[in-house]
Amino acid sequence: MQEKIVGGLAKAEDLTDEEKAAFYKVLYSRRDVRDQFLSDEISEDSLMRVLEAAHHAPSVGFMQPWNFILVREQATRQLVWEAFSRANDEAADMFEGERKDLYQTLKLEGIRKAPLNICVTCDRTRSGKIVLGRTHNRQMDLYSAVCAVENLLLAGRAEGIGIGWVSIYHEQDLREILAIPDHIDIIAYLCLGYVDELYQEPELQVKGWRKRLDLADLIYEERWKDEGKS
Amino acid sequence: MQEKIVGGLAKAEDLTDEEKAAFYKVLYSRRDVRDQFLSDEISEDSLMRVLEAAHHAPSVGFMQPWNFILVREQATRQLVWEAFSRANDEAADMFEGERKDLYQTLKLEGIRKAPLNICVTCDRTRSGKIVLGRTHNRQMDLYSAVCAVENLLLAGRAEGIGIGWVSIYHEQDLREILAIPDHIDIIAYLCLGYVDELYQEPELQVKGWRKRLDLADLIYEERWKDEGKS
Repeated sequence: MQEKIVGGLAKAEDLTDEEKAAFYKVLYSRRDVRDQFLSDEISEDSLMRVLEAAHHAPSVGFMQPWNFILVREQATRQLVWEAFSRANDEAADMFEGERKDLYQTLKLEGIRKAPLNICVTCDRTRSGKIVLGRTHNRQMDLYSAVCAVENLLLAGRAEGIGIGWVSIYHEQDLREILAIPDHIDIIAYLCLGYVDELYQEPELQVKGWRKRLDLADLIYEERWKDEGKS
Repeated sequence: MQEKIVGGLAKAEDLTDEEKAAFYKVLYSRRDVRDQFLSDEISEDSLMRVLEAAHHAPSVGFMQPWNFILVREQATRQLVWEAFSRANDEAADMFEGERKDLYQTLKLEGIRKAPLNICVTCDRTRSGKIVLGRTHNRQMDLYSAVCAVENLLLAGRAEGIGIGWVSIYHEQDLREILAIPDHIDIIAYLCLGYVDELYQEPELQVKGWRKRLDLADLIYEERWKDEGKS
């Protein structure tokens, strides 16, 4: 007897205008949050919905290389914050003059203020050495895990949860604090908490760090054409 | 006179249950599409909406390092397909026995069938040498461009457009065909077309390549704990 095919082709349901608008509302109102976190615990239902959303990201060869470490204890988050803080002092010194002054006024993390942190990792050994789709681009598994992060960020917005992505730390520090083995790649360290307020535009734009580029300048037809654009 | 702050903090609008459901419908019904593409041209309105969605991905230091090369000509897509085809023969040879047989039955791209291809790139030189948030993790700009790809994939689903991510090619081949300079990283090559039908589960699962993992096995509390899980 032939095995029953489960999950086969079916009519692709068209979304209504209202459904499309709801999707775009989530996408366009998502912000990287560093300071607006409320102290309320995130409900387990909301948390599982954002993790399930992450788990349904596309992955190369259906590898699903991600793990999610939920960091809740204040003591752990204090150690992560100290690791951030050391690295951030180094980072500030890489800028000069007015940029350095502005950099130092920016709050770039909510590690201790947000009630939950999540470290998203990528296990490059999962599903064996040869992975369908990773044969010629070795980065594809890392990119799959990043897609999981983006799904998580968007689902967070849908759930009323603000999320900030922290990238300023020495990897080895985080590895030691969270006992992450050497063969596991760290993809993202995220701070999560419910929010009442969000910036209407990216905070770095609002605070004068950098402006949104014109999309038209970023689109090329048929092949790369560098006509003074970038 | 002080410059007016534009885009400052505002009430974070709660989504209604219907809006949340619409967002999750898009997220969960998205599939990597390789063969169900219709030949209809994608409307410029739909195309601009998916590109705008990509352009609103989070990016490290608000760097927005992405570009989008729209590939429409059949001659160009034929060259890309030939590059894929050469690499795919090499890929098949990396698998053995039944896996190789199964691999060879899978259709892994829609380069010529889909009416539009988009190459998404990352310009690591954009916004200068020192980038806020990339000071300690050099991969962050690549990850930003991947977030743009995931936004593009999701927005495609919202617009009724199926998208397939092709990763099997030698980078140098694609670089030559699309005239991409050496300092630009290629992140994703995407095939886009309207679809009438979608798989209800990932095609690789439906076709017996690999199953979805249990999310519970991928979640750790407080720190990495490898208890026979993977």
